[in-house]
Order: sequence, then structure tokens, then C-alpha cells
Amino acid sequence: MQIDPLKLLAVARAEAELGQAEGGVPIGAALFGRDGTLLGRGHNRRVQDGDPSLHAETTAFRNAGRRPHYRDTIMVTTLSPCWYCSGLVRQFGIPHVIIGEAETFHGGHDWLAGHGVTIELLDDPACTALMTDFISQRPELWFEDIGVPSTSDNP
Amino acid sequence: MQIDPLKLLAVARAEAELGQAEGGVPIGAALFGRDGTLLGRGHNRRVQDGDPSLHAETTAFRNAGRRPHYRDTIMVTTLSPCWYCSGLVRQFGIPHVIIGEAETFHGGHDWLAGHGVTIELLDDPACTALMTDFISQRPELWFEDIGVPSTSDNP
Repeated sequence: MQIDPLKLLAVARAEAELGQAEGGVPIGAALFGRDGTLLGRGHNRRVQDGDPSLHAETTAFRNAGRRPHYRDTIMVTTLSPCWYCSGLVRQFGIPHVIIGEAETFHGGHDWLAGHGVTIELLDDPACTALMTDFISQRPELWFEDIGVPSTSDNP
Repeated sequence: MQIDPLKLLAVARAEAELGQAEGGVPIGAALFGRDGTLLGRGHNRRVQDGDPSLHAETTAFRNAGRRPHYRDTIMVTTLSPCWYCSGLVRQFGIPHVIIGEAETFHGGHDWLAGHGVTIELLDDPACTALMTDFISQRPELWFEDIGVPSTSDNP
């Protein structure tokens, strides 16, 4: 079966839009089998659950449940994965990552590529628009989500 | 206030022992403020919650709740943090990691040290014994927890 990266990205983007509608951080992700079977999908739940550990990728990973391994999976995310989510990909040996955009945030995907992970960066304007709007409207929430102190709470 | 790393480690080790008693992966962690205030503690919950995203460090991080930043925190864990948990430390700028042991598993702590994180490796025999016993008794669960395919389910 031929995988269409844009169709897989549409699932992650729908999750990001759900997150946006809920007033959360608009980043979505999904884990697929290499044949395109959906295993788990989800979006950032920092605001919704008060849970800083639930980035989009970790939520999709969690929702896929326990698996003996991930060597036959594809992670799709609307935004370049941060170090936390890149570490997830590396540790669990996810061999393929499809990324909506890396313009508003450049995480660890070059590092992953250097460790043999196939990276497909789609430069999707709708994913970029979601983040551009969010960062301009809620900068403090965005900085909190990536662990960057704002000037007011520098230690 | 002078921090005693062994006292902080005792909290993480008690979490690991709880995990062991529950039939789970016996790894524990805790997040402290730099003055030694406990912010969150937890243990691996793969078995207990059927949740592969809850490593010890991510559980402690989650249980600490939302914070504007982590530049004034210390992560304590019974075992060298895997790439997933090392990515968490790097992304959120946790500046100091105390580790019970790195003999049974060597994760990303050298990488973290190379990125300016203070690493204290305590070589605690009780932490090593917890993992040595666990790995010998439940190797398939251990490999699942770190995403390594066992020979029977190689893709």
C-alpha cells in the first residue's frame, strides 16, 4: 500500500484543530503502522488536563497503547518534534517521522535524521498558520509548553 | 540549604519499590526544587495503567503539574534516563539530574552532560539490585519498556 503523507498529516492536523478549539496548544500527532493503519492519535493536553507531559506526540503514543516494539510505525506530527518528543522517537525506534512544519519551531528532527530516522518535512501552510496565530495570541502558554522562561519568571 | 543527593534518591527508590510491589517496571523518579522541596514523584506505570508513555521521570514530571519553567529544579531517577526521558530533561531545561545507577542501562546522561546538565551518578547498589532482579525475571517486559524488539517479534 502506497502511503500518502498528506493524508496521514490530515489526521494530525485535525487533532491540532481540536486542540485549538479547546483553547489548548494547537499541535496534533498520530501514530500509524507502516501500512497506514491508525494506531493512536492525539493532541497537546497541557491546558485541557493540566498535564505538561502530554505533548501531541506523547499523547498519540499513549493512545496507541502498549506494543512490543515500534519498528514498523510512522509518527506524524503537525510541528517539528521538540527534544522530549524526539527522544521518544529515538528511544522507541520509530523509523519514520512525517512533520507538518518546522518554520515556527525547529526541534530535534535533524538529530533524528542523523540517527537514521526517515524525516519527511511537508511545509504545510495550514500547520504553520495554526502555530503562527497561537504564538502571537498566547506567547506565555507557548513558552511554558517548551520550557522557556518568560522574562518575568527568569530564575 | 545543603542538598543531600542520597536523601533525594531515597524518594525515587521508594517509588521504584512501589512499582516493584505492584508488579511493574521498578524505576522511580522525583522532581525537586533546588532547595530540596518535593514537586512531584512517581514510578513507571506501563503495567499498572497500560500506558507506555509513563516512564518514571515523565510520571514525576506530570505529577509536578504545570510550571512556568524548570530552571530551578532537580530530577532524581533510580536509573540512567533513556532517550525519551533525557529529551524531557533537555527540552524543559532541567539543569541537574541525580541518577541511582547506570550499570544495568546507560541512557542519554552523557549527552545531557555535554549540553550543560549537571549529572550526579551515585552507583547505588539497591537501585542496581532492583533492575538486575527485574531484568532477569521479566526480560520481555524490560525490552518492551525500552522499545527493543525481542527476537520473536522482530519486524
